[in-house]
Amino acid sequence: MITSADNDKLKTIRKLAQKSWRDKLGLFAAEGEDLVQAGWEPEFVLRAGVDVEPELLNAVSLLGSGTRVIGVYEQRWADPGGDLSIWLSGVEDPGNVGTIIRSAHALADGPVVLGPGCADPYSPKAVRASMGSIFARPPARATLAELPGRPLALSAHGERTLDEVEPAPPLVLCLGAERGGLPEELEREAVRIDVRSESLNVAMAASIALYEAARRMRGHG
Amino acid sequence: MITSADNDKLKTIRKLAQKSWRDKLGLFAAEGEDLVQAGWEPEFVLRAGVDVEPELLNAVSLLGSGTRVIGVYEQRWADPGGDLSIWLSGVEDPGNVGTIIRSAHALADGPVVLGPGCADPYSPKAVRASMGSIFARPPARATLAELPGRPLALSAHGERTLDEVEPAPPLVLCLGAERGGLPEELEREAVRIDVRSESLNVAMAASIALYEAARRMRGHG
Repeated sequence: MITSADNDKLKTIRKLAQKSWRDKLGLFAAEGEDLVQAGWEPEFVLRAGVDVEPELLNAVSLLGSGTRVIGVYEQRWADPGGDLSIWLSGVEDPGNVGTIIRSAHALADGPVVLGPGCADPYSPKAVRASMGSIFARPPARATLAELPGRPLALSAHGERTLDEVEPAPPLVLCLGAERGGLPEELEREAVRIDVRSESLNVAMAASIALYEAARRMRGHG
Repeated sequence: MITSADNDKLKTIRKLAQKSWRDKLGLFAAEGEDLVQAGWEPEFVLRAGVDVEPELLNAVSLLGSGTRVIGVYEQRWADPGGDLSIWLSGVEDPGNVGTIIRSAHALADGPVVLGPGCADPYSPKAVRASMGSIFARPPARATLAELPGRPLALSAHGERTLDEVEPAPPLVLCLGAERGGLPEELEREAVRIDVRSESLNVAMAASIALYEAARRMRGHG
């Protein structure tokens, strides 16, 4: 039973709150029973009252109090691919990145591919928002030029709507930040989601686009 | 220029962090230029460096530092209605409630109707997540029995998929919490979204369902 905050495992968890340390160590922390159950082989797991005094575990929690278990894992990165996947550019909010990883797990067969300027998918908020999908479907990293499939950009300014195009595999849906958005060569051919207002959260737009593309690729279109 | 934290307007903003005070005063606070621009007639607006010393405004900020403007508004509540709307039960996360308000504004013509156990849509996180849609389309409150339209429940355990049913107006999509869910009489007739895994965030499920219902009601189905 760990009874001192000076313990090396607790120090590691504290470090993993910072991206620089996550990059350096190639590790990340996942909190909570659901996530730890979904996880791959951990470097180590600390359970409150079993491996560590509860107040010491709480003190290193990245998400709030009452944490009962924290696992530390190596980061894994997939290769881009699949009949349907999604590429993100400049999506800075970790909650959105994690939510899109969760939606892509439910709706696509390829990984979420992170382009420039995206939040770290192994940050605490992204891992939490992914609800275990980070383990089931680890993300990939690639520039636009490195993508193996056909890029189809989603943009509020697209001339055609998503349900006017015929999505053919391998399809890579491309989404930009809420402000800023996509490289110009993508914007020119972009499609939009047919909405009453222009305002859709990027994770909502991603989920709807994945749903629509998956539905039509199954031939329901 | 307000130079004391004892100022009544600053005190009001501080109180509005708490649901009990929001309920009592019938007011809420919105932070940031985007939201204040989207807002209806305010009770008052405080701008950093114009109406109030910046550090005093920061000190009452509910969302973080660097706040340049906070507006205080009366709460408005709509009546349930419209050809397409959504009813929520037990959605406790204010970010999800706000995000669903934003998606419904983009995809439906009726308000988000809050059933039992939902987060306060006028909480700071919900208002922020709604990105102004809280002003454009204020929420409603109703029990299941009070809903004017046809309820169609979404559930991971539904026997049919959403694209197997013919959505006819007035349609009320019904979504429950991530755990717990919907009243039993609704679960029996529930439809599901066709996904590879069972795990979709409630706001994603809501957005996809609204998109699909709106698309089919336009006759693209």
